[in-house]
Amino acid sequence: MGLVVHKYGGTSLGDADRIRAVADHIARTRRTGDDVVVVVSAMGKTTDDLLRLANDVSSVHPPRELDMLATVGERISMALLCMALADRGVQATSFTGSQAGIITDTDHTRAKIVDVRPDRLLAALALGQVPVVAGFQGVSTDRDVTTLGRGGSDVTAVALAAALGASVCEIYTDVTGVFSADPRVVPSARRLPKVSFDEMLEIAASGGRVLMLRSVEYAKTHSVRLHVRSSFTWEPGTWIAEEEPAMEQAIVSAVTDDTSEAKVTVQGVPDRPGIAAQLFGTIAERSINVDMIVQNTSDAGLTDISFTVAREDLAATMAVCREVAPALGAAGVSSDDGIGRVSLVGAGMKSHPGVTARMFRTLAEAGINIEMISTSSIRISCVIRADRVEEAVRSLHGAFELGAAS
Amino acid sequence: MGLVVHKYGGTSLGDADRIRAVADHIARTRRTGDDVVVVVSAMGKTTDDLLRLANDVSSVHPPRELDMLATVGERISMALLCMALADRGVQATSFTGSQAGIITDTDHTRAKIVDVRPDRLLAALALGQVPVVAGFQGVSTDRDVTTLGRGGSDVTAVALAAALGASVCEIYTDVTGVFSADPRVVPSARRLPKVSFDEMLEIAASGGRVLMLRSVEYAKTHSVRLHVRSSFTWEPGTWIAEEEPAMEQAIVSAVTDDTSEAKVTVQGVPDRPGIAAQLFGTIAERSINVDMIVQNTSDAGLTDISFTVAREDLAATMAVCREVAPALGAAGVSSDDGIGRVSLVGAGMKSHPGVTARMFRTLAEAGINIEMISTSSIRISCVIRADRVEEAVRSLHGAFELGAAS
Repeated sequence: MGLVVHKYGGTSLGDADRIRAVADHIARTRRTGDDVVVVVSAMGKTTDDLLRLANDVSSVHPPRELDMLATVGERISMALLCMALADRGVQATSFTGSQAGIITDTDHTRAKIVDVRPDRLLAALALGQVPVVAGFQGVSTDRDVTTLGRGGSDVTAVALAAALGASVCEIYTDVTGVFSADPRVVPSARRLPKVSFDEMLEIAASGGRVLMLRSVEYAKTHSVRLHVRSSFTWEPGTWIAEEEPAMEQAIVSAVTDDTSEAKVTVQGVPDRPGIAAQLFGTIAERSINVDMIVQNTSDAGLTDISFTVAREDLAATMAVCREVAPALGAAGVSSDDGIGRVSLVGAGMKSHPGVTARMFRTLAEAGINIEMISTSSIRISCVIRADRVEEAVRSLHGAFELGAAS
Repeated sequence: MGLVVHKYGGTSLGDADRIRAVADHIARTRRTGDDVVVVVSAMGKTTDDLLRLANDVSSVHPPRELDMLATVGERISMALLCMALADRGVQATSFTGSQAGIITDTDHTRAKIVDVRPDRLLAALALGQVPVVAGFQGVSTDRDVTTLGRGGSDVTAVALAAALGASVCEIYTDVTGVFSADPRVVPSARRLPKVSFDEMLEIAASGGRVLMLRSVEYAKTHSVRLHVRSSFTWEPGTWIAEEEPAMEQAIVSAVTDDTSEAKVTVQGVPDRPGIAAQLFGTIAERSINVDMIVQNTSDAGLTDISFTVAREDLAATMAVCREVAPALGAAGVSSDDGIGRVSLVGAGMKSHPGVTARMFRTLAEAGINIEMISTSSIRISCVIRADRVEEAVRSLHGAFELGAAS
């Protein structure tokens, strides 16, 4: 007998039938003897509907009030799930982020957890109850309601699993796990039974859509084993845990893709120290996240600096660049929103230097031009044309034989 | 410059347009120099929709979870109203019942306020902000979310007005005030510019639908002046305040009617002490509210005891009566759900004993039979057939010349 944390996303709780199905599964899990702490997201599109209402009412949206509004959805789903559990004879008690002891900083709409004080959850567990916690939300050190930003419910689940010493944090979603490539692009993609934290971080960072980077980071830091699985089929999914040194590593685990970014190039910058610091310092001040950065010295001591940002940040980024270009002595600024990125991720890559060359060869054979390259010890990413991304994913998935054994 | 409390009901906040209209009015009020604390209900039918969802999900509804669910609506409307106020340059901050310091007992779905600790509201006011508070909800001494039951948002508003020493508590609704009779029944009914607390209590208790008894009681106990007015026309409405001894009292202020009750008669009870205590003690234990009680000793030392209860409690009441009838030595129990009640309310009645006789004569002239009578110092109620109630209201309204001066 141990303690497990279950996290159910919006599609898993999409309607009354889904809520009853989730209650059945929690009741089954309880019957195995395990204690369960449940973290829920808002039902389906509840939060989107509320934000649309906010747009109807006002063009001004103070972040504190946005958070008050956006935390309503989880409260609805947790109260309903507790009722469905009661209907099955399982004693359940709902807890808001505040009641569950999720203490955050005061950065509304993207607060960070600063402390977890789960004494009310422990008291409920001691009474044999199932605590059902509102994900995505907390209470700030100023006693205001806060939200944790995108993917926040996963962060809540991982934080509680860490604080409560759970044996596993099960993330229930509408897919059956983490795949060797997006199954919509590569029909032969294989579900990965096990992925290391480092691989999962690279997969999340390079376009894997199942888990957000932040919750994986939190899980790695606190050594919380994750199990990503389906709330529709209930079959075993993908385990994400520490690497086991004894095990032979797959060289490449997954091909990921991302077409959500755009490229910005600052041209003809004098090649002297401090230029990059000045440029990216100014961009960071505007809270714009830069992803890949490539710098190439050209002739005559001039440099082109290219980098990628989320496409929705492109306009703001261009404005910043045009602002600082004169001070940098740059010749000009250009952008390209037709790019895409394809990446190979694998823990075994560390000891197999040939992967990079084989990746480039595979893309060359498909006639796909590489525009930018960036690598980590267990990932290689290439920026290519967006309209060639799916073809690149399929070629690489085949070349590295990542598909299901047939 | 003073402090006023505004309370807006569900129809006043029914959609985005209504929320903007309310924000305009609050901004206008602020410009007069008054500080404003706002209490809101849930938008339109939000809470009904949530309870329907609860029925879809489960047949079991633990009261604590019902309260968690039912408090969502006020959070939505207060966040939206704060956004609309920000849009108008008015700094507003929303507060849940808990954040506003509404401390209740632990009686979920019908909690009572045990303390009001408005320090966060005072801090917001000191910063020049408009605090917008979720009505109908509080936090229990066990730190759980509670609701105050029907009419709870009015109670929140009155409690805050008392705790903050507000000069008035303005109750904004979809009617323009308290009338001399229901305007749907009597088209010539007149809006009463001023009503005493005692009159308002009797009006609320005898069928007036504008304010719930509980909030009027709270206002009388704490001497909070109420102003009931329309959020659609914004015209001055009805003031409810202490009686002014110097003023000449109107003998009769209003005719009220109520067809929501049923009558129960316990027949042939031996006429000895303790019988009524035993009967009504048992009924009270089942949390059934009894309204009018009439007891008439008949011949042979036997008594009929008749009383009225809300029609939805009739089945439960009959079950109790049949249960205790043998112990009481009663001959039988009967019920009548075809009754209605018509009442005259007026502070001047105290010193004008002729009102009762004139009421009976008016009803007699209309050919309406009186089945039960009950009086207080400022009210006379007659139980009659439900299908004669509207006619009785019109006759009495005319006979006592309560209509608008023409």
